[in-house]
Parts: sequence; C-alpha cells; structure tokens
Amino acid sequence: MSSATGTFETPGSRTWVFPGGHIPVESTGPEPEFTSRDELCLLNAGPEPAAVELTVLHEDREQVGPYPLRVEAGRVRHVRINDLIDPQAVPLGEPYGLVVRSDVPVVAQLTRLDTRRGGLSTAVAPGYWA
Amino acid sequence: MSSATGTFETPGSRTWVFPGGHIPVESTGPEPEFTSRDELCLLNAGPEPAAVELTVLHEDREQVGPYPLRVEAGRVRHVRINDLIDPQAVPLGEPYGLVVRSDVPVVAQLTRLDTRRGGLSTAVAPGYWA
Amino acid sequence: MSSATGTFETPGSRTWVFPGGHIPVESTGPEPEFTSRDELCLLNAGPEPAAVELTVLHEDREQVGPYPLRVEAGRVRHVRINDLIDPQAVPLGEPYGLVVRSDVPVVAQLTRLDTRRGGLSTAVAPGYWA
Amino acid sequence: MSSATGTFETPGSRTWVFPGGHIPVESTGPEPEFTSRDELCLLNAGPEPAAVELTVLHEDREQVGPYPLRVEAGRVRHVRINDLIDPQAVPLGEPYGLVVRSDVPVVAQLTRLDTRRGGLSTAVAPGYWA
Repeated sequence: MSSATGTFETPGSRTWVFPGGHIPVESTGPEPEFTSRDELCLLNAGPEPAAVELTVLHEDREQVGPYPLRVEAGRVRHVRINDLIDPQAVPLGEPYGLVVRSDVPVVAQLTRLDTRRGGLSTAVAPGYWA
Repeated sequence: MSSATGTFETPGSRTWVFPGGHIPVESTGPEPEFTSRDELCLLNAGPEPAAVELTVLHEDREQVGPYPLRVEAGRVRHVRINDLIDPQAVPLGEPYGLVVRSDVPVVAQLTRLDTRRGGLSTAVAPGYWA
Repeated sequence: MSSATGTFETPGSRTWVFPGGHIPVESTGPEPEFTSRDELCLLNAGPEPAAVELTVLHEDREQVGPYPLRVEAGRVRHVRINDLIDPQAVPLGEPYGLVVRSDVPVVAQLTRLDTRRGGLSTAVAPGYWA
Repeated sequence: MSSATGTFETPGSRTWVFPGGHIPVESTGPEPEFTSRDELCLLNAGPEPAAVELTVLHEDREQVGPYPLRVEAGRVRHVRINDLIDPQAVPLGEPYGLVVRSDVPVVAQLTRLDTRRGGLSTAVAPGYWA
C-alpha cells in the first residue's frame, strides 16, 4: 500500500439519492456560517473530473433540473442547496429530494444545519447509492 | 447523459426497515413546525406511482398495518408518523419500528425532530434496504 | 402484496457493527427520559425469535461478551447500553464499539442522546451490516 | 454460536469514504471534552492489527496523506481529526473529505460534535464502503 489512492479502483457510485431534503426558512446567528441549510458534500477520489447533475424532486410539482456541478479530480466540493439558482432556486420550507448523477464514481452526503430555534442542530443524511 | 432521469434504471429498493422509531410526547415552540416527530421521507424517481405499505412493529404488542401510502412518479412525499391514524394511531413515547414495502423502487429515510427540552434536535435515520 | 410480511424473505442481516460508541458520564433533565445514553434498536421482521449476542470492543482492554438479548418475532427491542450489566457494565465516558450477531436476520441501529450541556442532542448511527 | 467473534469472517471493508468533513474553528464549554471536532471511529473485529492510512481531500488544494493509524486486533480507536499533525494539520473551518484504506477489514464512522453556538450538537456520518 505504497500510495493511498494511486493503484486502487475509484470508490464511489454514479447515482446517489436523498429523499429527505428540507431547507428552513429562518436562521439565527451570524450569516453565512449559521444560515440554516442543506449542504451537498461530494468527493471525487478518482483521476478525472466529475460532471455531476442534480435533479430536484418536489411533492406537488414537476421535478427540476439538471443542476450541473463539477468536482475536480482528488477534491471535495460542498455546495449549499440554498445557493442553487440555475435553472431555478430550490424553494425554502418545503419537502424536496435529490437525485445525483455523475459520469464517474463519487461519494455524496447531505449535511443539515438548522438554527431556527437558536443554538445549532446538525444532522447527516448519508444517501442511497445504486 | 442528456437526461438526468430518462434513460436510467430507477434507483431504490422495494423494502426499507427502520428499527429505531420513537415519537416524543412533548414539544416546545410553534406547532406544527416544531412538533416533535418522526417523519418518513419517500422518493420515487421512477415513471410509475408507488403503492407503499407501512407496517409498524412494537415492543410488547402485535404489529399493526398495513398503512397505505402513495408516492407519485417523480415526486417525494414526507409523512409524519404522528399523523398516521388508519388502521390506528402510532403510540407516542414508545419504541417502535417500521417495515416499508413498495411495489416499485423507492428511497426512504426517517427524519427525527425533537423539541422536548426547548431548542431543536434533529437526526436522520437512513434505513436498511434489502 | 396481500400481507406486509407474510410472503417475503425476512429483511436484515445476522451481523451488525457499530464503531463509534460513547456514553456520556453526565446528564441534565429528568431521568430516565433524558439520561445521556446510547440505545441499541433492534427489529426482527421474521417469524422466529432472534437470539442476539453483543460483543463490546474497547480501546485499551480486551473485548467483553457475549451480552445475550432476545428479540421476539415481529417485534422491536430498544436496549440502553448503559443498562447492560451481565457479564459487566460498559464503562461510561470511554470509546467503545459493538459487534452484534444474531441467529436470524435483524436490523439494528444505535441512537444517541446527549444532555450533558443542557438541552438535548440526538444522533443516529446506522451501523455496518455484513 | 459459542464465540461471538472466533469462527466468523471479519466484518468490515478495506476502503471507507467520508465526503462531508468540517471542523469548526470555535468551541464553547470545557476542553477537551466539548471541543468542536470530527472524530474518526475505527473498529477492528479481526485477529490481526490493522494498518490504516487516511488521505485528506480538500476543495482548493492537493490531497494530503497518508496519515498512518494502527488499530489493534479486537479493539476500537477513536481519533480526533483535529489532532492529526503528521504530515500536516487539517485546516479548521474548511470543507474536507477522507479516504480511509486499511490492509484488513475495519468498520469506520465519523462522529461530529459542534459547540460553537453553546450547548451541543452531534451528528454521525456513517461513511461509504467499497
């Protein structure tokens, strides 16, 4: 094991699904650090950049996407769902879900931070991979 | 990858299991937003509606079900376990578990929100798929 | 799908592993409801009782076990690790891990509740299955 | 099942990936108990020591590693990412990710503790195994 990543197959999956998205409308504490949010965390352990596409699914309307994202080789990228605006912003205070597709294997996770009631509440949604 | 969902096999599983359910009896803060709860989050990425059946398992009594739920194609659905009443309400303040069966692949997650002690505590139970 | 459990293979695994156990020494709020704890949640969806054995692994001493547990058919069981005393109590305030073995498939999860700093903090560790 | 670990294949994986690392810069409450942190929890259920190597991936710079760790047979080890200094400290307040490689099967989890806003917030990231 002379290199931690050099000679191994790239770990990860091309499809990730997150059913439980919800971005609180309110926040307390200094922004942007304590803005209530869902944050998609992507890791690309491979030698090529990853072209990632998000699709956002809703309860009472058609799905929206793709939202394109790029993750460089050997890098992570943490993206606030609150900040996605193209093709359109994800509504706050409503249930949503994510389907994440990548052209190369990546690993994804959704980190939740909620400051609505003061203090801080965090949770991690690990995602389903297929 | 011209379409984010069009030409792929539907990701998900027909069976999901959650062993650690528990709905707190008390809440603080404005309802229904901050009502302590377990919330089942379902995502149907496929082209057909999903007919989902929940079975609720208890510690000291027979299992109860099925609780039928429908998730439209290309949609999510977030259901508070607290709100299920047919065939019967799930008791608060007691351990329970869920077995989720669907006729098409779905992805499920259990989101927990607890405001008993003031403030807010959140957690995500990702579920076992088979 | 006439029955939610009757004609399906029992979902679950015979081996579950939890590497991140830690029971806080202190608690705030009324006991036993708000006692800081790790709680092992087991679900047996099958038609036979499950004979479960826990082994507790430590950082600086030999592993301890088995701790026997029984989960009835079609039931859940939530067990506080704090309450295990035979063969010996699990030390508080120290890292530990769990290997869970069952003679039939079960689903396991570790729920954490921490009230050391006032308020309430919850987390769910979903476990590795093999 | 006369022994809980003796005659079974060792459960676990040689590769674990965590995409969502982030160590808060600030903490409240007594240290080191309430220092905000990410803690990597490793469990080695097998009969041989595990030689583990971490690689830390960043957003805007090259990956760093390997960070070597040893986990004795039949033991757990909980390591604060904050405490890793060789080959270099992991920057606080920045996104990072972890690729964990082991020469024998282990089980890994990342536990997060955040005291920035007073009180305590905990979360568990279960990791992707390959």
